[in-house]
Amino acid sequence: MADLLASIASSNAAPAAPIATTHRMGLSEEEAAFLLQEATAFAAGHGMLVQAPEQRYAHLPYCLLPVAFPKTQFEKGVALGPLFGTLVDRISEDPDWLHAQLESVLAEDPFTRRLVELSKLVQANGRAQPASLGIFRSDYMLHDDPSDEHAAKILQVELNTISASFACMSSLASELHHYLLSRFEADMPSLARYYGTTITSLASHLPANPALKALPDALAKAHAHYGRPSAVVLFVVQPNESNSVDQRWLEYTLWTEHKIKVLRRTLLDMHRATQDATTKALWVDGKYEVAVAYFRAGYTPTDYPSEHEWSGRTNIETSLAIKCPNVTYHLAGTKKVQQVLASPAQLRRFMSENESRVLEACFTGLYGLEKQSPDLAASVIESIAPGAHHQCHSIKAAVRANPQGYVLKPQREGGGNNFYGQEVVDQMDKMTPEELESYILMDRIVPQETPAILVRNAQAVAGATISELGMYSVSLFVHGKAIVNEHAGHLLRTKLSSTNEGGVAAGFAVLSSPFLV
Amino acid sequence: MADLLASIASSNAAPAAPIATTHRMGLSEEEAAFLLQEATAFAAGHGMLVQAPEQRYAHLPYCLLPVAFPKTQFEKGVALGPLFGTLVDRISEDPDWLHAQLESVLAEDPFTRRLVELSKLVQANGRAQPASLGIFRSDYMLHDDPSDEHAAKILQVELNTISASFACMSSLASELHHYLLSRFEADMPSLARYYGTTITSLASHLPANPALKALPDALAKAHAHYGRPSAVVLFVVQPNESNSVDQRWLEYTLWTEHKIKVLRRTLLDMHRATQDATTKALWVDGKYEVAVAYFRAGYTPTDYPSEHEWSGRTNIETSLAIKCPNVTYHLAGTKKVQQVLASPAQLRRFMSENESRVLEACFTGLYGLEKQSPDLAASVIESIAPGAHHQCHSIKAAVRANPQGYVLKPQREGGGNNFYGQEVVDQMDKMTPEELESYILMDRIVPQETPAILVRNAQAVAGATISELGMYSVSLFVHGKAIVNEHAGHLLRTKLSSTNEGGVAAGFAVLSSPFLV
Repeated sequence: MADLLASIASSNAAPAAPIATTHRMGLSEEEAAFLLQEATAFAAGHGMLVQAPEQRYAHLPYCLLPVAFPKTQFEKGVALGPLFGTLVDRISEDPDWLHAQLESVLAEDPFTRRLVELSKLVQANGRAQPASLGIFRSDYMLHDDPSDEHAAKILQVELNTISASFACMSSLASELHHYLLSRFEADMPSLARYYGTTITSLASHLPANPALKALPDALAKAHAHYGRPSAVVLFVVQPNESNSVDQRWLEYTLWTEHKIKVLRRTLLDMHRATQDATTKALWVDGKYEVAVAYFRAGYTPTDYPSEHEWSGRTNIETSLAIKCPNVTYHLAGTKKVQQVLASPAQLRRFMSENESRVLEACFTGLYGLEKQSPDLAASVIESIAPGAHHQCHSIKAAVRANPQGYVLKPQREGGGNNFYGQEVVDQMDKMTPEELESYILMDRIVPQETPAILVRNAQAVAGATISELGMYSVSLFVHGKAIVNEHAGHLLRTKLSSTNEGGVAAGFAVLSSPFLV
Repeated sequence: MADLLASIASSNAAPAAPIATTHRMGLSEEEAAFLLQEATAFAAGHGMLVQAPEQRYAHLPYCLLPVAFPKTQFEKGVALGPLFGTLVDRISEDPDWLHAQLESVLAEDPFTRRLVELSKLVQANGRAQPASLGIFRSDYMLHDDPSDEHAAKILQVELNTISASFACMSSLASELHHYLLSRFEADMPSLARYYGTTITSLASHLPANPALKALPDALAKAHAHYGRPSAVVLFVVQPNESNSVDQRWLEYTLWTEHKIKVLRRTLLDMHRATQDATTKALWVDGKYEVAVAYFRAGYTPTDYPSEHEWSGRTNIETSLAIKCPNVTYHLAGTKKVQQVLASPAQLRRFMSENESRVLEACFTGLYGLEKQSPDLAASVIESIAPGAHHQCHSIKAAVRANPQGYVLKPQREGGGNNFYGQEVVDQMDKMTPEELESYILMDRIVPQETPAILVRNAQAVAGATISELGMYSVSLFVHGKAIVNEHAGHLLRTKLSSTNEGGVAAGFAVLSSPFLV
């Protein structure tokens, strides 16, 4: 997600590139320019902004119009949300299993090691707070399955269990697209043509996006569960947050809709927080009791430059405050756990057969590279050539047979580059077995491409794009029982898939929204 | 009002000046800095923005906290709104009188001459549209009357009958201040001390500001009166509008609340508009019928660089569209008419004795300087030394006796500097009688001063300030009968009264709001 903000950091606006005719999909040059002007004004007026240097603000980059997306696949994503809520909570109720799964990555990943130590400390002390709040975002790509007549299906990229951001901004993107389609469809018949249809009421194809309401509602429910009306919701934030408008809207809505106060504090600030010796209630500045601690920081090693930040995190984790998320929820979102759960037997430890099948439909193949992994070669080989694994006598040979089919990802959280194609083969040849252990092999997703017009600094570029669908869900579990567990809105990010005809560098992602077809 | 925007135009942020203790009025340095941060985030997140160079946006300069204002005087301003609505409509029903009053300024003011010619043309043709929409803002200063134990009272500076702007931004300023006071009064007892009180519920002292709803409502009522649901509301805009966010919120609200489409066109664009030969219906692009033409341009000579813009204005004025305002409403807001109505007899031509007295309570002395003006010497001298005018044998002598009591203002609309104090005497000595005719002499208002903290580019400066209260009103009259005529919200602008302790130049005005006491 950082690229959404990074694309703003460069203060040099891209030169105005003419939008290639082939990508305007029926919009005239004038229509595209007009929509660009209207959309940019709407974005700024509604606070779809990010901080820029010198006390200025820039609109967040956005997709000019919503992107066609298969309705059945979107609905599958809606249904998956609560299943992940249940899965994560059940994992957190089984911390010994969780810690055991992570054992193999700890040597190479000191950050995860600290989190596991913290989780063990909480377990050893006995959890002060049985309620757990989850605000998750499960991210999917639309996989263009060549083996199934190019039927597209969503495949999970990752599950974000901490600091899932852009919920408020994605609601604004949905509002923007709803405004553009409803306001201009009658005046601009080419809008219907853009979607290859003659229908009217184009805006009815945009799914409701309740994120801006659903997230504060969930925080308010956790606050009510805590049971002290005067207590605050703590936002744990990074010291220099450039995406503050997104967070601020949660804060404003908590105040205007629920009369709940938000305090913003860094992990370093929380080093100085205190706990009531008896109740473990968490107090800030000696005068604010914390009902809910909502992490918008602490998910990456760089958020902990000293022991003070770990002390701040520990203060929160061991307290009575309801954490969003607690450390076990955080750990349940690691790549390692995702990979372990790709194993059918492990998934069924937590979920019923039916639930498991629904979940597995969105899993892509994930393979651990531990030296001791007995299933490795078999599973990799099976995925390449079902029934033929006795013909391949090593993992490397299996990958070499289809290098474009895999991604090699570091297990470590918060850093490191992925390898693709021939690089996968080369790296596997080069690495020692110990080095390989810190990587995960993943089936490569072939994302469906759609032409679209992207806007950054009020300049448009057009080209073939790929999109990532993020589905928010919120959950509040107490002793394994769900009080809240539901879909909570969506985020679509769109980026140019390679280069584009305007010659502008590819790679920046923009806020977008799905047009269901 | 332009200074609100001009203060942004300089991209060099003022150096961070420490806020002088004497002006923080009980807020600690930390509290002021904290509120500054919260307020700036709120302003940006809610679109209280103006366009800056390079596709950036800056928050509009604002007053950190609402400014104390006498409740009785605010309420007087609320009551005055509909009276001005009635007055302007009655003037517009008496165009011969209006044209006669303006006769004396036409030689020196070619802009007003064109407007009068246009008004006469409309009258000669017969008005195509009997309904008139008014969106006015009457601007007042709080006069610190030294002759009345310093009892403060509002005195009218001017009545804006065209393009009264900042209604949406002023609603946001009210929202900002409501948020700050309600959210932080419990955590920050110094806020109550800031207002010299121990009361809680500080936000209840902030009057409701319905501008963001009331203006679109009025436009929608005029649209409904026109009677064609598919017709549009035309915003007549300047070619390069930097205050577009303010206008855009009217547009968005018309769409979301009323499903009425807004078109934005310049006067030059309207040169190409067409009229139905029979009905005089105004059509844009041959496909949009205009129900209401709302002017956010056309109020200053520079909006008419060629005859094409006058042709555009004429197209609108002679059409069936409901104008906001029509040219007679526009002319009723000129300084000359304001000065004429300061004469009791002229005011009573249009208003009852009771209404006239209410209006006159907010009038400041205004005197024409026509050579033929028989009342001039007498009225000026009477205002200086009641009953003593036989002792002063010339206007100049009268002014010389009290130079600080007057302002010399050009009658011409849209330009020219005012003269104050000794300059008034010097200019009156220097000018020929013909030159003097193009000026108006006005009693100088002594504005009440209040300490306040102003914020520009997220930097605070503090000092003694003066404020100008703008009261919006909306009216829809048909054949002299009011369908709508009501107060419609307020705008408070605050600026440093002279220099300030931080050494930052005085003069920039900021968005503010009144705290009624």
